[in-house]
Amino acid sequence: MPLLTHIKGPRDLDRLDPEQLTQLAGEIRTFLVDAVSKTGGHLGPNLGVVELTIALHRVYDSPNDKILFDTGHQSYVHKLLTGRQDFGKLKGKGGLSGYPSRAESDHDVIENSHASTVLGWADGLAKANRVLRKDDSVVAVIGDGALTGGMAWEALNNIAAAKDRPLVIVVNDNEWSYARTTGGLANHLATLRISDGYERFLARGKDLLERTPVLGRPLYETLHGAKKGLKDFVAPQGMFEDLGLKYMGPIDGHDVEAVESALLRAKRFGGPVIVHCITEKGRGYTPAEQDPTDRFHGIGPIHPDTGLPISAGGADWTSVFGEEMLKLGHERDDIVAITASMLHPVGLTKFAEAFPERVYDVGIAEQHGAVSAAGLATAGLHPVFAVYATFLNRAFDQVLMDVALHRCGVTFALDRAGITGTDGPSHNGMWDMSMLQVVPGIRIAAPRDADQVRAQLREAVQVEDAPTVVRYSKGAVGPAVAAVGRVGGMDVLHRPDATGTADVLLVSVGALAPMCLEVADLLGKQGISTTVVDPRWVKPVDEEMVPLAERHRVVVTVEDNIRTGGVGAAVAQALRDAGVDVPLRDFGIPERFLPHASRKEIMAEIGLTAPDIARQVTGLVARLDGKFVDAGEIARD
Amino acid sequence: MPLLTHIKGPRDLDRLDPEQLTQLAGEIRTFLVDAVSKTGGHLGPNLGVVELTIALHRVYDSPNDKILFDTGHQSYVHKLLTGRQDFGKLKGKGGLSGYPSRAESDHDVIENSHASTVLGWADGLAKANRVLRKDDSVVAVIGDGALTGGMAWEALNNIAAAKDRPLVIVVNDNEWSYARTTGGLANHLATLRISDGYERFLARGKDLLERTPVLGRPLYETLHGAKKGLKDFVAPQGMFEDLGLKYMGPIDGHDVEAVESALLRAKRFGGPVIVHCITEKGRGYTPAEQDPTDRFHGIGPIHPDTGLPISAGGADWTSVFGEEMLKLGHERDDIVAITASMLHPVGLTKFAEAFPERVYDVGIAEQHGAVSAAGLATAGLHPVFAVYATFLNRAFDQVLMDVALHRCGVTFALDRAGITGTDGPSHNGMWDMSMLQVVPGIRIAAPRDADQVRAQLREAVQVEDAPTVVRYSKGAVGPAVAAVGRVGGMDVLHRPDATGTADVLLVSVGALAPMCLEVADLLGKQGISTTVVDPRWVKPVDEEMVPLAERHRVVVTVEDNIRTGGVGAAVAQALRDAGVDVPLRDFGIPERFLPHASRKEIMAEIGLTAPDIARQVTGLVARLDGKFVDAGEIARD
Repeated sequence: MPLLTHIKGPRDLDRLDPEQLTQLAGEIRTFLVDAVSKTGGHLGPNLGVVELTIALHRVYDSPNDKILFDTGHQSYVHKLLTGRQDFGKLKGKGGLSGYPSRAESDHDVIENSHASTVLGWADGLAKANRVLRKDDSVVAVIGDGALTGGMAWEALNNIAAAKDRPLVIVVNDNEWSYARTTGGLANHLATLRISDGYERFLARGKDLLERTPVLGRPLYETLHGAKKGLKDFVAPQGMFEDLGLKYMGPIDGHDVEAVESALLRAKRFGGPVIVHCITEKGRGYTPAEQDPTDRFHGIGPIHPDTGLPISAGGADWTSVFGEEMLKLGHERDDIVAITASMLHPVGLTKFAEAFPERVYDVGIAEQHGAVSAAGLATAGLHPVFAVYATFLNRAFDQVLMDVALHRCGVTFALDRAGITGTDGPSHNGMWDMSMLQVVPGIRIAAPRDADQVRAQLREAVQVEDAPTVVRYSKGAVGPAVAAVGRVGGMDVLHRPDATGTADVLLVSVGALAPMCLEVADLLGKQGISTTVVDPRWVKPVDEEMVPLAERHRVVVTVEDNIRTGGVGAAVAQALRDAGVDVPLRDFGIPERFLPHASRKEIMAEIGLTAPDIARQVTGLVARLDGKFVDAGEIARD
Repeated sequence: MPLLTHIKGPRDLDRLDPEQLTQLAGEIRTFLVDAVSKTGGHLGPNLGVVELTIALHRVYDSPNDKILFDTGHQSYVHKLLTGRQDFGKLKGKGGLSGYPSRAESDHDVIENSHASTVLGWADGLAKANRVLRKDDSVVAVIGDGALTGGMAWEALNNIAAAKDRPLVIVVNDNEWSYARTTGGLANHLATLRISDGYERFLARGKDLLERTPVLGRPLYETLHGAKKGLKDFVAPQGMFEDLGLKYMGPIDGHDVEAVESALLRAKRFGGPVIVHCITEKGRGYTPAEQDPTDRFHGIGPIHPDTGLPISAGGADWTSVFGEEMLKLGHERDDIVAITASMLHPVGLTKFAEAFPERVYDVGIAEQHGAVSAAGLATAGLHPVFAVYATFLNRAFDQVLMDVALHRCGVTFALDRAGITGTDGPSHNGMWDMSMLQVVPGIRIAAPRDADQVRAQLREAVQVEDAPTVVRYSKGAVGPAVAAVGRVGGMDVLHRPDATGTADVLLVSVGALAPMCLEVADLLGKQGISTTVVDPRWVKPVDEEMVPLAERHRVVVTVEDNIRTGGVGAAVAQALRDAGVDVPLRDFGIPERFLPHASRKEIMAEIGLTAPDIARQVTGLVARLDGKFVDAGEIARD
């Protein structure tokens, strides 16, 4: 890497000539394929923005000028150009984040990984420039997929309103979100892309003009002859210019000089500008270029030459859900599926192949996923909206006000619930069981294994008058955990004897069942007897929970969710409401953002392990027995 | 009302001739002014849609065809035409809802009052029609203001994608949201509205065409001569047609025949169509037509002739906030204000007059309000986003992932928090203190009186590294409630003696302080001593809360918020974490949607009154004393 290794910061790009820039782009691609194939990460998106990122850093003076990346998984090239070339532990504990990170660099501004936010950030920064009388530049890079999100629209509407507030929007148009971008906007972009606007004008115009009785033909011919003069006048600016945004493009996003030239013009313009760049996801890496399924968007470790995964994992939660959806689709005509631009990642590929008329990719538009589901349910269908748990946060108002208030039978299948780890704080699905607790009438299932995913999904789609949620973890699903009994709707996973009484009632939520059984085992060695119960449906709290709790000296809840307002809090409230003051301790995720690391490392760090929990519970029981225990030992942050 | 009284359902409109329709429209306006001036309600929006609604019901066969109203406050005319003409108790207990209501009529579909949802509902219903092979029509009425919301964009993008899925969107364009609609879209609509598109084309085109060296003048003249033929071809369709939506308009929304004619064409079109209707808010009512401030959007009781309010209330929470913001604006250059299209209702009018460069109306776009605030804060300003508590639900993801994750000093001033009553379930601000509990680092203030609003707003804008929230009620602010002492950051409002111990620790949240003092008084009469403490900042739980609780036999929390995951739950968790097992009972709003009624009626119904609480606490204390009390008496739903 003779050039790349000497790039310590953006200004080192200034001295490179066009030939060297081409060489640098090649080095960066080699570096990315090599590095990301070892650690896993977002490969395709970064291969697509190599030249674009180089051009951005040559035209703008980061960090004084603000270069903002939407979603942020396409910031690897930006990292390489801003002094961060150690990708050895990418996304791992202590290594570089997979997204921009303020802690890593002053060149990074937005570090969340939720799409469509960048234009709002840019609008805020541009407004502040005006108040503070600063003339630093603000440039926002957003994909065509992220433009389908409502936040992007809200921001465009604001940005366009101020003709004299400079702000450059680079649309990185590769025709993909996670899946191929769909919808009216995508069609419009395709028009701009393919035809440069002009042929479209002619296609639409010719027909109409020819039908214009008097002037039709001559007018069409006149227009046709005026191609050059009309080019900047008709059509290509399209809807952006209708909103009041200057449009430039389309630009070949792999031509550094062309992008630089456009950016320089945009920077000088003095108002809001859209620079429409056409890029190719996976550019320069044959396995990615040749794969039509976008398999290289985000990857685990792969063989760099072939692009094949190194480890072939077992069944994962997602595929268990996907297989059952396929079965349900065959059994029930009224079941339809919704995805927010993640058909494959959420496991709906097979359902979509079998029932193409009954699956809706709404774009990166969780709000619309939820509200359109309310409409589908009102008409008598049963929609299943499969979505990453963290992304449902964006549809809280719609789940509450559209689905729940209208008593719609909509099932939300929450994938990647709980600690996901390496994608950092905003990818953890740690809020859903708290956020959804406050939704009147909602029912939440947390299946513990593959059998329960199947069973509880089936129970969920039976409910026709309320929203239901089935939330499950990321990655490989563990072995089946058998029930040894049932109390109400709850599975008993372990009990000391047939009396149903014990020292500790351990309420195990979802995939943490094996760990909870381990806790029971460890407690048993301390002479503490434990009942382990899996409530299956964590909301509403099962009516047998309180009587069961009363047969124990202490209740302990364990969940893969933020403790605040979670399942433990709900059980505690049920006990309070019944006037039952059995002490309860709730274990879960502390109320803070979790830095990127493996799931296992994070669980250890926050004390969500069997030995940690067993130690705490032992202390609590000892205290109840009147033995001295330091109270600090029992408290959890 | 010779005609109106005989309209029992939409089909009764079929037999009326044009002259009678005009008469009917007049009768409806007289009815509305008369009825709404007595009860209060949304006057201006309904006066604007009289002819439009008549036309809709003549063209479409509701309830088989689905007529959907966005936000829903413009559905009074729809109610009058669908068998609901008793407006005597409008918005009151047992009376008609101020919004559509499924319980009232089969003609009503969407009953929430959050804007910008209708297109998503319509998309879902239209998709279902396709799956179910039904050819009922779906027609959605949405204001120009609501189109600024991101949900509308997400839906448009989906609707436009299916050229063969019929769906009619009626844009009710009156240039107003709650305030005058702003942004790029508003400008675009204005262009369509004023010029019918054509003059715009000419204005833009003439200049360019004249500058086109060879063909300029002749081309311009040719185009100019072709006005009729070109009218449907160039420009007016604008961005909607760019997305792939057929555009019809603009139509005079007060001309029943014109609207009917457009709707009939739209209905036959067989794909997604936008019908752009121009209406006048407040049409036909002189006080409303002549008021430029949109004072008649939603009103309390008024004198029908003059439009002047009947009761002149005292100071309200909103104006206390507004006055303090004005002061803060003078004191600190870095404070900026944000509103989501509700400048006046949230009390920012004076701030905007004094500092027009430092206030941002982002449209009905709470997501953008929050995310652009993160940008403003990152640049060194301190934004205060004033918004109704219920509407912040829509920005949960942005508060969490943009503001809190990035440690931005943004203050959210939540107006209309708690039970608001007559506007029905979706207008109550009963979720904020639960939803926001899970946001790491956030601080939430619940001021109890005007002095505290001022003081806590000042404390909030001092915080530069985390989001802060100040939440307050709707309506008149009560008298000042003095503190008799302080523990940590908490105000003690009542204590039996100087020892700091008592039977009951009553934690009073916000405006409920006078009621809590009454509870203490009632308990005192039962021989139960009570300390009343106002935590002021309900999150994080004050570190003195646990030691204070330990000096009492029971802790009782009272909040104007859903019980689930609220302040009581947070205090309970703090006690658990400290290993303090003092019994706690939490009073608040039960986990269900509240039907419309006055605040007082609702509080009585859910048992959030001093006598109710005192009775429950008395029972609890008696139980602790070993006296028999029916447990059911203590439990709350």
